[in-house]
Amino acid sequence: MAANETHQVALIGLGTIGIAMAALHLRDPTSTIHIFDVRADIEQFIFAHLPGFLEPVSRGTSVASLISSGRIKIHTALETACSLATIVQEQGPENIAFKKPLWAQIEKVAPPTAHFWSSTSGIPASEQTAAMQNKSRLLVVHPFNPPHIMPLLEIVPSSSTSSSEVEFACRYFRQVSPRHCPVVIKKEVSGFVGNRLAFAVLREACYLVEQGVVSVKDLDQIMMSSLGPRWALGGVFESYHAGGGEDGFRGFLNKLEATVQEVWDDLGLISMTNDNQRWREYVTAQVEETYGQSSLGQTNGKKAKLREVLRIQSSTP
Amino acid sequence: MAANETHQVALIGLGTIGIAMAALHLRDPTSTIHIFDVRADIEQFIFAHLPGFLEPVSRGTSVASLISSGRIKIHTALETACSLATIVQEQGPENIAFKKPLWAQIEKVAPPTAHFWSSTSGIPASEQTAAMQNKSRLLVVHPFNPPHIMPLLEIVPSSSTSSSEVEFACRYFRQVSPRHCPVVIKKEVSGFVGNRLAFAVLREACYLVEQGVVSVKDLDQIMMSSLGPRWALGGVFESYHAGGGEDGFRGFLNKLEATVQEVWDDLGLISMTNDNQRWREYVTAQVEETYGQSSLGQTNGKKAKLREVLRIQSSTP
Repeated sequence: MAANETHQVALIGLGTIGIAMAALHLRDPTSTIHIFDVRADIEQFIFAHLPGFLEPVSRGTSVASLISSGRIKIHTALETACSLATIVQEQGPENIAFKKPLWAQIEKVAPPTAHFWSSTSGIPASEQTAAMQNKSRLLVVHPFNPPHIMPLLEIVPSSSTSSSEVEFACRYFRQVSPRHCPVVIKKEVSGFVGNRLAFAVLREACYLVEQGVVSVKDLDQIMMSSLGPRWALGGVFESYHAGGGEDGFRGFLNKLEATVQEVWDDLGLISMTNDNQRWREYVTAQVEETYGQSSLGQTNGKKAKLREVLRIQSSTP
Repeated sequence: MAANETHQVALIGLGTIGIAMAALHLRDPTSTIHIFDVRADIEQFIFAHLPGFLEPVSRGTSVASLISSGRIKIHTALETACSLATIVQEQGPENIAFKKPLWAQIEKVAPPTAHFWSSTSGIPASEQTAAMQNKSRLLVVHPFNPPHIMPLLEIVPSSSTSSSEVEFACRYFRQVSPRHCPVVIKKEVSGFVGNRLAFAVLREACYLVEQGVVSVKDLDQIMMSSLGPRWALGGVFESYHAGGGEDGFRGFLNKLEATVQEVWDDLGLISMTNDNQRWREYVTAQVEETYGQSSLGQTNGKKAKLREVLRIQSSTP
């Protein structure tokens, strides 16, 4: 965006992801954030939760002053929230029955040049645009938890999204938050990329616990004391290339091919839909026994450590 | 081990893993390391490579003084290397035709109380012990690259390994290197646990690159800016438990079950053995284009960052 470009960002739906997104957009000191959510206590919700998502340097900024200065505007109708928007981003319920008509309606009330983004983790733009006149303006911006700290934003266009929309979204996030890292996914696939990798690991992790190979606690310990740190610092391919000897990734595949194939043939195929659901209760019970019945969420200590790991990633060695 | 216990560690086969293991065992100031390797230039090899694996604090210790003081003893025969051993650890070639007769021979020349460990990444103890009289003393100690820094040691007994051997191995490594983290794998499965999780990710990563969904560089970027840091700080189950809302892991599975199953059904099934090997050359070529034809290995800068991430993990928030 040009240096003198100021944005009017309409956020539709303000849950945990939405409030983190609001904090992210607020990092641009010239933008105005328009909020529309159906919950009756939306103002209280913002007062209660937004401060925890603001950057440490701007924690002093009170929500009251953000509202009184007009940087945050709370709307009671979709139409007014979107009427001046340069960007409309939705974080509503994860079902197509909600999103499809919503976008058709937004298209009618937002300026014709507004950029349309969905924070969905699973519903591709091609489905969300089904009832729209112009399908070229919408793309997915999929953040990772906790979204105000975790750098990744998966930018997922449909085949109808114009390339200038993709470029704008990447440019916008790089400029608003240098820590954040937009990555373009070139084809719409289930789970995009991050969650496909994560769910491949989750499936095998649940399988190994259910088979009695390892406990929940020990599996987590294994991840934390090997692959997690490795992948925090080098990604999948770069790590195998570095660890594969002189011939790098090629050498790794050649040397390990029998072992890798043996593992691939043996990976667990547990399912959420077939008759055998023993794994599900067994694993869940062990997670609850290990980490407590109800979740404490992400603690502040963990968030501070996450910021430190990200700082090390980008430091010059 | 008791405080007054001193160890005579025989290391059989000294490649990259072996030399890292030597450095690890040397952290116990009272132990003697006996080395046996068939290479003619073994002494030069140790002089050239061991210093890089010693702890920063003991870098001043010269290899020459470790040899002249008798802390490292280089042997030209398996028999003399093992004759006084309290621990025999092998890092030889990864094939059963080498390991099976080796252990049968070691059993004859080592003291009857010696502990037997294999650093294999894939050949289970139950196969390695096939020609031994007493199968209860051998277990797998599978380290992760780079083994002198990466904390994980997968301790994998066979069904014949005695539980006291498992306990001894865990106690030994905890005492010699408080940073290292032995985890017991309860059943012998292909790839143990760490590599199963890693190869599940690798398979999907190669599939997504081959399908043109994402580039090698972007996939690595995705891993580094989301799952890597997350799993460095919280493991798989703990992370989903923290991120799943009030109901933790149970809530996560309930909310996301359709998306997770959709991804599981869609995961790539590329293979090293079937007719379609297009992915292999395609992905390898892209890795080499991205990171250079030959690998630089793990740089000192990366190792320093790894130490920092591990320090953050274990710090009090």
